[in-house]
Formats: sequence, C-alpha cells, structure tokens
Amino acid sequence: MTTVAVPPARARVPRHPSCDHTEEMAARRREFVKRQTGADLTHVGTYSVDPASLPGNIENFTGVAQIPIGITGPLRVLGEHAVGDFYVPLATTEGTLVASYNRGMRLLTENGGVKATVVDDAMQRAPAFALDDARQALHFGKWVADHFEEIRDAAEATTHQGHLISIRQYPVGPLRYLRFNYTTGDAAGQNMTGRATLAACEWIQHHYPGPARYLLSGNIDTDKKHSRLNMLETRGKRVVAEATINRELLRSLMGIDTGHVFWSRQIQMVGSFLAGSASNGAHAANGLAALFIATGQDAANVAESHASISYSQLLENGDYYWSVTLPALIVATHGGGTGLATQRECLEMMGCYGPDKVQKLAEICAAVVLAGEVSLAGAVLHGDWVDSHERLGRNRA
Amino acid sequence: MTTVAVPPARARVPRHPSCDHTEEMAARRREFVKRQTGADLTHVGTYSVDPASLPGNIENFTGVAQIPIGITGPLRVLGEHAVGDFYVPLATTEGTLVASYNRGMRLLTENGGVKATVVDDAMQRAPAFALDDARQALHFGKWVADHFEEIRDAAEATTHQGHLISIRQYPVGPLRYLRFNYTTGDAAGQNMTGRATLAACEWIQHHYPGPARYLLSGNIDTDKKHSRLNMLETRGKRVVAEATINRELLRSLMGIDTGHVFWSRQIQMVGSFLAGSASNGAHAANGLAALFIATGQDAANVAESHASISYSQLLENGDYYWSVTLPALIVATHGGGTGLATQRECLEMMGCYGPDKVQKLAEICAAVVLAGEVSLAGAVLHGDWVDSHERLGRNRA
Amino acid sequence: MTTVAVPPARARVPRHPSCDHTEEMAARRREFVKRQTGADLTHVGTYSVDPASLPGNIENFTGVAQIPIGITGPLRVLGEHAVGDFYVPLATTEGTLVASYNRGMRLLTENGGVKATVVDDAMQRAPAFALDDARQALHFGKWVADHFEEIRDAAEATTHQGHLISIRQYPVGPLRYLRFNYTTGDAAGQNMTGRATLAACEWIQHHYPGPARYLLSGNIDTDKKHSRLNMLETRGKRVVAEATINRELLRSLMGIDTGHVFWSRQIQMVGSFLAGSASNGAHAANGLAALFIATGQDAANVAESHASISYSQLLENGDYYWSVTLPALIVATHGGGTGLATQRECLEMMGCYGPDKVQKLAEICAAVVLAGEVSLAGAVLHGDWVDSHERLGRNRA
Amino acid sequence: MTTVAVPPARARVPRHPSCDHTEEMAARRREFVKRQTGADLTHVGTYSVDPASLPGNIENFTGVAQIPIGITGPLRVLGEHAVGDFYVPLATTEGTLVASYNRGMRLLTENGGVKATVVDDAMQRAPAFALDDARQALHFGKWVADHFEEIRDAAEATTHQGHLISIRQYPVGPLRYLRFNYTTGDAAGQNMTGRATLAACEWIQHHYPGPARYLLSGNIDTDKKHSRLNMLETRGKRVVAEATINRELLRSLMGIDTGHVFWSRQIQMVGSFLAGSASNGAHAANGLAALFIATGQDAANVAESHASISYSQLLENGDYYWSVTLPALIVATHGGGTGLATQRECLEMMGCYGPDKVQKLAEICAAVVLAGEVSLAGAVLHGDWVDSHERLGRNRA
Repeated sequence: MTTVAVPPARARVPRHPSCDHTEEMAARRREFVKRQTGADLTHVGTYSVDPASLPGNIENFTGVAQIPIGITGPLRVLGEHAVGDFYVPLATTEGTLVASYNRGMRLLTENGGVKATVVDDAMQRAPAFALDDARQALHFGKWVADHFEEIRDAAEATTHQGHLISIRQYPVGPLRYLRFNYTTGDAAGQNMTGRATLAACEWIQHHYPGPARYLLSGNIDTDKKHSRLNMLETRGKRVVAEATINRELLRSLMGIDTGHVFWSRQIQMVGSFLAGSASNGAHAANGLAALFIATGQDAANVAESHASISYSQLLENGDYYWSVTLPALIVATHGGGTGLATQRECLEMMGCYGPDKVQKLAEICAAVVLAGEVSLAGAVLHGDWVDSHERLGRNRA
Repeated sequence: MTTVAVPPARARVPRHPSCDHTEEMAARRREFVKRQTGADLTHVGTYSVDPASLPGNIENFTGVAQIPIGITGPLRVLGEHAVGDFYVPLATTEGTLVASYNRGMRLLTENGGVKATVVDDAMQRAPAFALDDARQALHFGKWVADHFEEIRDAAEATTHQGHLISIRQYPVGPLRYLRFNYTTGDAAGQNMTGRATLAACEWIQHHYPGPARYLLSGNIDTDKKHSRLNMLETRGKRVVAEATINRELLRSLMGIDTGHVFWSRQIQMVGSFLAGSASNGAHAANGLAALFIATGQDAANVAESHASISYSQLLENGDYYWSVTLPALIVATHGGGTGLATQRECLEMMGCYGPDKVQKLAEICAAVVLAGEVSLAGAVLHGDWVDSHERLGRNRA
Repeated sequence: MTTVAVPPARARVPRHPSCDHTEEMAARRREFVKRQTGADLTHVGTYSVDPASLPGNIENFTGVAQIPIGITGPLRVLGEHAVGDFYVPLATTEGTLVASYNRGMRLLTENGGVKATVVDDAMQRAPAFALDDARQALHFGKWVADHFEEIRDAAEATTHQGHLISIRQYPVGPLRYLRFNYTTGDAAGQNMTGRATLAACEWIQHHYPGPARYLLSGNIDTDKKHSRLNMLETRGKRVVAEATINRELLRSLMGIDTGHVFWSRQIQMVGSFLAGSASNGAHAANGLAALFIATGQDAANVAESHASISYSQLLENGDYYWSVTLPALIVATHGGGTGLATQRECLEMMGCYGPDKVQKLAEICAAVVLAGEVSLAGAVLHGDWVDSHERLGRNRA
Repeated sequence: MTTVAVPPARARVPRHPSCDHTEEMAARRREFVKRQTGADLTHVGTYSVDPASLPGNIENFTGVAQIPIGITGPLRVLGEHAVGDFYVPLATTEGTLVASYNRGMRLLTENGGVKATVVDDAMQRAPAFALDDARQALHFGKWVADHFEEIRDAAEATTHQGHLISIRQYPVGPLRYLRFNYTTGDAAGQNMTGRATLAACEWIQHHYPGPARYLLSGNIDTDKKHSRLNMLETRGKRVVAEATINRELLRSLMGIDTGHVFWSRQIQMVGSFLAGSASNGAHAANGLAALFIATGQDAANVAESHASISYSQLLENGDYYWSVTLPALIVATHGGGTGLATQRECLEMMGCYGPDKVQKLAEICAAVVLAGEVSLAGAVLHGDWVDSHERLGRNRA
C-alpha cells in the first residue's frame, strides 16, 4: 500500500450541523467565499426565495444565480392536455433565443397552432445482475419474468405515485441488464424509481434461489446521458409536436419556400445520420434548456431531453408537414425545483402548477421545440441567421 | 394554394420599439402576464441585475429565475492553468447534488488533487455545399483544400479572436460537408464561427469556378446536439481530469474497495456500449449543468458537453487510476452570460473572470466532473445512493 | 417530363424461359461471357453441384466460386445443444485465419471447453404505418396491441415454422414503426417473416377502422445492416460463449499474462466506445464469414452477425473470465444454401444438418468466435500478429 | 493458481510439417473428417484450384465450398476508371438476389448508366499509445505530429505499395489513439498497413524521449467491424454511385412513381436514424457479399463495407436524383483471394484483374449497390417483394 503525503487543503465550506438553510448561514458562506477568494457575492446574495423552503433542493445554500427570463408567445397548442394560447417563459443568457422562438411561435399560431401528443411515458432505473454464467442468467431472466407481479409489489410498496409497467431484459454474457419502466405521476421520478428499484432488487436477491449480485445501475438507464436506447425506448415522456405549414404563410412571414425547406431537410437528415447525432433536427436543446431553467426542471436532463427526431413530408399542394418527436423528455410539475419561488410562478403562467399537469407541460415543451425548429430553418435559409445574432447577440465582431 | 382560417390569437407580449431593456418594460410584461394568465410574477420580478446590461442576452426581459447556489470545495486542481484549491459554485434545484460533488472533491483533494489538461480546442460551424455530382464535389473539395489560406483570410476578417485552424471534409453523394474548426479565445464561439464561416462560404461561392450552393449548417457541427462526431473530433475544449486514488483512502472515506469499483466498471462500460450512450461514465451532466448555470454558460450546451469517456486501470498495488475525458466541453469566460451580475461573481470566486481564463475554467469543469464520478460510484457501491436521496432529496415516499 | 436518349447497351445475359437451371444453360452463359468479355470461365465451370438443385438459390446460374476450406478443431463446446469436440470448416481466402482460429480452439479446448448458450431468438420484419397525425398513430398503436392475437393468426396462417412472438412499437410523429418478432425454426427466416408480416399488414389495413398506409419495411428491421437496435433487441439468435481461462495455461500456450490482457481490454473497450463500433471485441466477422460461406449461410448477414459484445473480468486468482455475446447471429440449418452439395457436407461434419439443429449451430458459431478473440489477443500482445501474417499470409512486403 | 483437469480431446487435424498444400494432404484431412465425424466430403473434395497455389490463402486446406454464381448485367457504369457496360458475377445461395440486382441494372442502364466516383482512399491500422498522464500524452501527440516524416519513412520502409498519408490523433485520458491512414495500391492493405504501422510504432517507441507503451490495435481501426468512425473517416475506398432516374422510365419498368419513392424515403431515413443503423439505405450487403465471394475479396469485410449513405432529391420535373455513398468499401485486385482460379476469372470478366484496377472495381461495386437499392425500392413499393421471393426463393410456405 502506498501512502499519501499532501499539503493541507484550504478550509472547508462552513455548515450548520442542524439548521443550515437560513439566510444567516448563506451570508456566512458568502463572507467565507469573500475571505477565501476575494469575490464579492452581493448579487448572488440578492434573492426572494425563502431559504427555509430549500431543504431537498440544495445543500450549502449561499444565494442564487439570477437567470434572465424573456416571455414568449402566444403559442397556440392543440394538445390533449394543453389547449389554448400560451405565454411561455424562457430563461437564458443567449441573445436571439427568445426572439427566434417567438418568431416561430407566431408563425405556428397564425398557421392554426401546434398539435401535441404524449405517445409514451416511462421512467427508468436499470440495475445489472451478475450471475455465474450465461445459462444461469438465462434462468434468472425467466425467473424474473415469472415473478413480475411480486417484484412490482415490492417496488411499488415504496411509492404512491410510481407504477412499475414492465421490466425489459438485455442479456450480455453472465449479466442481465434489467430496465425497470415506471410511470411516475407528476414527478420526473428518478429518485422515486431509484428507491423502488432498490426495493425490487433486494426482493429479487432475497427470493431468487441462487446467488444474484447486482449493481443498482448498470448504466443502461441511461440517467443524465443521451443514448440510442433512450431514443428507442423512451425516457420520461415521448411527445410529438406537429403542424402542416401553409406555403404562402411561410413565404410571407419568413420569406422562404417549402420546397427549399424540404431540399435542405434532405441534406440535414443525411448530415445528422452521418454525424451520429442525437437529433436530426436543429436545436431542441435551446428551447428546452431555457424552459427547464425557468420552470424548475433538472437542467442536467437536457442531456437526455434534447434528443429529437424530425419527420416531414412536402405535400402535393406545396404545404409542409413538419413533426418533431422528443423521445426522452424529462419534465415534472411536482417535486424537484418546481415548487420554488420563481419556478412556481413560471409554471403558473402556463397553468402547469399543481396535480395532473405534467402531460400538459410536456405538450407545451414539444410545441416550443417545434417553434424553434421552424424559426431556425427560416433564419438559415433566408440568410439572416448570422445577421440576427449580430443585431441581438452580445458578441459583436 | 390552401387558405388558413384560424381564430384570433391572444395579444402579443408588449415590447418597446427602441428601449426595451428597462425595469419599466419588465414590469409592464409582468402585469401583462398577470392580466392574461392570472400568474403573479413577484418573485420573478425580484432581481438585482441591471436590465440595461441585458441587451445581447435576452429579449422581452421580464425578470429572473432564481436558481439556488451551493458552494462546494475546496477542490484541489493541478492543471496547467488552474492550480490550487478552488471553491466551486453549483446552481441546482436537485437535492443531494451539492453534497455528493462535495464528497468527491474532498476525497480527491485529500488524495492529492486532480490533474487536469486541455488536450484539444476547436469550435465549429459546418456548412454543406451541394454540387452537381460526386465528381464535381471531389473537384470542389480539392479546390477548397488548395485555397485554405484565402478562405481562412475571408473567415478571420470578421473576427478578432477567432482563428480558423482547419476545414475537415466529409463527402456524401454530390455534397461536401465542411467542418470549419476554429479557436475562439475566451468565448464559446458559436456566433463568432457562424459569422466567420458565412463570410468564408460567400468567398467560396464567389470565387469557385462553378455553381456551389450551400447551407450554412448541414447539421454536422453538431450545434446543441450530442454526436459521435463531436466525441471523436472535439467541440469546444477536450479536457482530461485524472487521479490515481489511494486504495486505503477510498476505503476509509467511502467504504468501498478499488477492486469492487473496477469490477463494477466492467459492467458499466459494457452497459454504456450496449445502450449506445453519450458517456461511459455516470453523470457528468449533473455537475456541468450546475456549474454552467452558476457561471453564465449556455445551458443548452449540456447537450454536447455531457459526453464523457471514462478510462481507468486497477494498478498492481491496488490503487485505482481514474480519468474522465470531456470531448465536447463548451465554456466561455467572455461573452454570453458570463458578464451578468451573479454569473460574474461566480466566475470571480474561481478566478475565472477576465481575459485568458477559459482554459482554467475548462480544467475546473473536468475536475468537478471527476469528483462527481467518484462520489456516485461510492454511493452506488456502498449502497447509500438511494438513502442519501431519501435524506437530502425532496421527494419522500 | 424529360426524355432519355441513351446508346444501346450490350446484349442481355441469355436465359431459358422455362428450364434455366441446367449445365447446358450454364455453359451457354459462360460462352456468352467469353464472347462478350474475353474471360475464360473454365474454373467457374468446374463444379459438382447439380444445377437442377439450384432453383431457389440462384438465377442465371453459370458456375461456382471455389472457396478453399480449412478444417479446424477439435473445439470443445459445452452448449445446451452442441456438446462435444467439433471439427469446424472455415472457407476463406485469407491466410492465417484458419491457423489463428485453430490456435484459439486448442487453448479453449485444453482449458476445458467453451460454454455456449442461446439466450434469445427473434427474427423480424418491421413495417411502418403512416397515420394522419400522432394522435391517430397513438390510437392505432393501441388498436394493434389490442388485436395482437388476430394479427398473429393472420401472420402465422402463411407459415408452418414461423411464430409471431411480439410486436414492438416505435412511435415517431404520425408513424408507427412496428417490429414483428418471430421464431422461425431451423430457417433464418427473413423470407418467412416477410411473407407473414405482409399478411399481417394486409389484415391490419383491412380491419383497422380508418386509413392506415404502410411500408413493408420502415428500415428498422434492420435487414442486412448492423444497427444499435439489433444489438439491443436481438436479430436471429443471441448467443453467449464464455470461458474462464487458466492463467498458467494462457502463459504457457500463448506467452501472455492475463493481467496484460485485462490492461489491454480497458484500452480496447474505450477505443470501441469512442469509435462507435459494432463490436467491442476484435474480429468476430472473420470466423463468422468463413463459417457462413462453408455452411450455406447468407454471407450478407455478416453485416448483422458480426456485432459482438465482449465482457470480461480478471479473477482474484489471476484467471480470466472471458465472454462474447453475439446479439444478432443469423444462422440456419434449413433453407437458403444449407442443402447445397458442399454446404450440406460441412453442416454434416458438425452434426448440424437436419431438423432441430439451428441452436446447435449457433452455439458452435459463438464458440468459434471466442476462439478467434482469444487467439488474436494473444497475437497482438505477444507481438507475433504481424509476423504470423508474414509467414502465412500472401502479401509479402 | 488453479489447475485444470480436462478429459482428453479428440485428435488434432493432420498437417504435413513442410508440404501441406497438396491434394494428398487435403484428401487425408477429408478422410480424417470422415473417420471422426462420419461426414463424407466428396463434393468439398471436388475442385479445380491447384492446392499448390493456396499457401498464403488457407491453412489445413481440405477442399472447397462451391458457391453458385449468377451473371448479371449489362450494367452501364460511367466512372473515372470503369467506363462501359459490365457483366457482373454474383456468388450467392439466396434466391431472388441475382434477379433483383439484374432488374435494377437494367433500369439504370436504360436510364443512361451510373456515374461512379471514388472520392477518398484510406486504409488503417490504429495503435493506442499509453502515456503516464494526459499531459504526457499531449506532449507525445505533438511529438508524433512533429516527426511525421520520419515515422512515415519507418512505415514505408516495409512496403512498396503502401503510403502513409496522415496520422489522426484521438486523445482519451493518458492514451493517444493514432489512426494511421495509408493508400495501399491494388491491395486491400490490412496486412501491409499492420506491418508498416508496427515498424512505425517501434520507431516511435525507440526515439520518443520517454516511456511510450503501445497496443498495435486500440480498436479504432475498426478492422472487420462497422463503426461510426469508419463511416466518417473512410476505410478502404469511399465511393459514390449516382443517377437521375427518369420518372416515366421508372413508372414503365417498375410500376412505381418517383413521388411515392421519395415519400417512402423520408420514412426509411427516419427509421434508419432511429435504429442507429449502419446504413440509411436498403441492402448494400447483399450485392457486396455476392460480389466479394465471386471476386476473391475478404468476405469478413462485408462488416465494414456494407455501411452506406443514401442521399436523394426529388427534382422539379419529377425525376429522382439518387445517390449511394459507400464510406468503407474494402476491395482489392491484388493479393488475398484475387488470384485464385475462379476468383481471377470473375475479375477478368469485368476487366479488373491486373495492376491499377482497384478503383475500377470499386466503382463497379458502388454501381451494383445502387442497382440493388433501386430494384428493392421498386419491389417494396410495387408490392411484389414477397411475391418474387415466393416465385424465386427456396422457402415456400
């Protein structure tokens, strides 16, 4: 064994052992940072959220990041849950983004609105069980399938909102990667499914007649990571936004022709395929990140949620059918950051706060993404993409 | 041609034609939202950032999202640019995240710190040129290679900080996808490279002896999207964080053995490969999203930046060599949101505000990611992953 | 409409309208080729297969390609179906291949043999249905799930051996990609599943209360193509071969240490992940192509079948657990080329001709692949990889 | 250390120590097989190839697999090297294949022929160097770039035909994956590049001022494996085949409309993207495997070569521009199996035997693939796909 000889590190960040979520402790930490680094955290220390509301959301609370919000809309959504004209808050520091989405929303709204549909719903935790060999693993896999009800009961005993829908199995060597698929109510559900799957794994390990070692995540969930598997099998909500765009309207509002859009679409689809991209569309991440930050979603889930599949057809009359499918949209209207001060206000602005609102929010997200796709296509083809960044963006030449 | 008959939409968001970035206009929009939706935006309207500082960052400014910041550290970084013990601000609404990263930082710091190295640097815009056929495209490709200096001059004439390093070519059918690689100084550079590449494409189109139609993006950049291409060829910074973790220290601080970690690593690497994941590690997106929001990075770039490649070896003495490579880390210390009130403070806390700081920030980002990887591995293997979310997280059963 | 003016083409290949599979017609075509191109097809015309046996296997039969066969083995297989020491025919023109596989077989056999297990079995045809919009497609998807039994009956009415196991649905926009999974007895089953799925689609189109246009293949089968989907969901057989290799035996027979193998494994797994490879192993395609050609498999299926997932662990005693999983192995012991003269002999050599032998053949295939992996690892690490190609290969410097 | 106790294996295959490539030894092995397994290898023993010609192609030569060849064509190719109407030998056991390709060839030839162009040429060996840490690896990478000429000289000293074009570097942690790109004359070049790269690595290891351990393959070549990297960066030849298909001709010969083809193309491109497929086309592997077997190519390279990228546009006049790009076509007209008896005849039939013919063969391969794509699209859309397999295929219901 080696020994470690390391110079002493700087002081650790102060914490209160029992009552840490207070303005007093936040201030103490800001002073600590000032003493240690010289940085003045005055703006960070300016906030209206109540520190006492933050246990469960943050540790070592010190203040806030203030992220500017621009309001966009109205965006007409024709969902099963979101029906009407919505004003959408986007939190971003990237100039042009709000203006661009706004332009797309205007076009889609004048065109009659965006159809939006949640077509699948499944949140995962995916443990890996290691057996002695592949034959044992095959036996184990059958046993798991045969005991699905009991495993489900063990999982669901830990949660009110989570329901175990299925366990998909992916065999490799002596391993069984199990992908537990849940619905999780209004929550995003990563913690809920983690807890439930732990209980299920413990049940399995206890009842399976033989040794069955497991890892709670074998990395096929794939939590906080884009993957082909999530694109295929859904993570969170799978949502479609679609519209048939009138040729004349597109020409008059954006100065581009649907034929030109479809020509470019062929090039971009091949480019996406060639690059091995998470999306054959343009920039879903932009709208989603801005909406996530505004509404208290987990911004790390942009990793999964930005995956998108565009499918379109040029119709015989010259109109353009355009759809975007988000296969791994992770959103919540309960839990996480959704109840915090500004985040709740932003959800309320869209009527998405409170129970049974997560499908509605998912539909709005997809409609926003479609607006961004249409707008950027217009900017690229009409040649004003760079120009608008010149006018609205921060980084001038 | 079809005609569109659509009921009238709700009112558009108010804007001031010339002077829109004021508290007055922000207040007007908050009132507008209240009138239209009933939502009170009092908290959104509580901020200290000066609206006059926001042109270039947001349109339709209405207020802010307040994202709680927790301070972590000290994290000892042994980079080429970042050298010392850093306190790192993480903005998140996800309980446990700050505590988990903090734990990993403590281990790595006590272990002697994290080596961090920026090994590549390249930001892109990637137009597609459409020629008449593949033979014309082949000819065109040679012509572009032969005129690299002139194309570079045309591109660089639009920017002080951007330098065109290379143009990579990807031929498909009659198309040439060109990937323009730039260094962009302290800026992330997406706008800079867009503008420069537009100028380059115009130069090409004007001088190439033959027709050469182009799209400014053929979707292989791949801007705001993860892709295999970015993982291979770098987008933004390619940064490595690495440490050789002492077996006894890991055991005493986290209660796990390096042999157990390496066993589980095999299962997770195969899982990631099987799933077609953007990362064979655990959760780079968590730390990066939190750091991005705190420091004014573009949160949409979590899409690209969360890609990561873990490589490790179990040494003969039982210690554990652990590295994380971020192939597409997009960060800036100039431009975008980096100069805003709270964001600047957070950069200053790490000595990352001002010129020539972007490599330093990139090194810190990678070190933070490594801390998160180590900590989560410990939690999963030691069995307290779910438990800590129970204690620190918001969603109790 | 444009018109086409093209100089006349050369003569078409002669065919007999009713009785084309004869040596007479073959000879006529060889003469035709000689007349048209000057090429003498004497060797092509030397064969013992009866032309009358070839309807269903080839059109325009003209002769044969003679592919040299080398016999390898014995290879000890401990499967559920293949149990014993097998001699394996490999048809190849690549020097070293037979010797290399033979070396691996010797090691594995002396080590106690290869465990082999078929862990999944599913052949597909995957049509895409286009509905009016995503909501219609969602409704359609539920309808299909609700009518699974009737759809299955329609499909199975066309085949004795094919059984429809499940229909997996992948929604995108207004589309439903349906992946029909079948077991297909001793046949590979692509034609069988095509016919059955056509009948199923026709049934669906006729009975579904609404318009439902379809393509018989929406390209997610993915027939004759590697894909992540096939790697995840199995195409043909999913087979595992595994062995725990004794450290001393490996050292004495191959001159390499298991620790060295495991070190290199980490590098190769990361390389495969980085490259976005169809395999994190070495060269499954080599053994499979040679075995496919010898035994009358469809060589085009090397595209799907070469995908492989290696999973290994270094045990505490220094022995090396090594597994290879082939997720998309497409083999048959009935139909296709399996009954032809030389092909049947090669199947008989392994006791794989006749009914109920396809699982056995699949197990042997996987064991052969593992032998090739072990052998190549030895060659690379021991440094005689290039050297053996010098000695045994054709292309000397 | 464990010990191995294993029952004795069956006898090893007989070999002659010095003179093994004789009919006598082949016969002895056939008898051995008969004795050991009961299988009569009479047909395997029927061949005209001279065993004395086989060293360098096979070990343990025992006989041949007879693979039926069907002649297709004429196929009009308008390449840079292949110009004229070609008859193409396809070796397959899959009924319908020859007829289907033949139909596509007829259409394309009547349409004026297929433009074919080799747009890139690069064969690889890709070692991985392991340094002490990422900073050392960065230094090493620069050193390699600075010493490219000397490394090239060391590599090229081992070969007459191989030329080292570039070394691409892919950094991960302390590793540098180096991808050596060569042109290899008329040979496929895997052995040539292996030998040359070994010499280069030895030179590097000897001259680099510091320790630099390497693996000759770090698995990013990716030899005998499909990968995204090969699709992007070319392996072997990158070839494009293209044609603008007349709408009326397509309708009259295949009974389908170009609009219908383009509609289905959108669905298939999205399907391929979704599935993470190696090809967004239909079945390149079919034609390539058949052509590879007939002409002495390495059939294992179907793994890499079947990757394909289809790009098409529907023109304003209703004609259909169709291109197929093969990014990783590995072919040879020298070395490997190209000189064997039947294989050489098949190359001669196309004027592809002898020096400087490999580009010509590559162009023909791509044109054949395009013919197969067009034909299958016709069969799927016209509804006779299954039907033709009923008529021509072996597996009747």
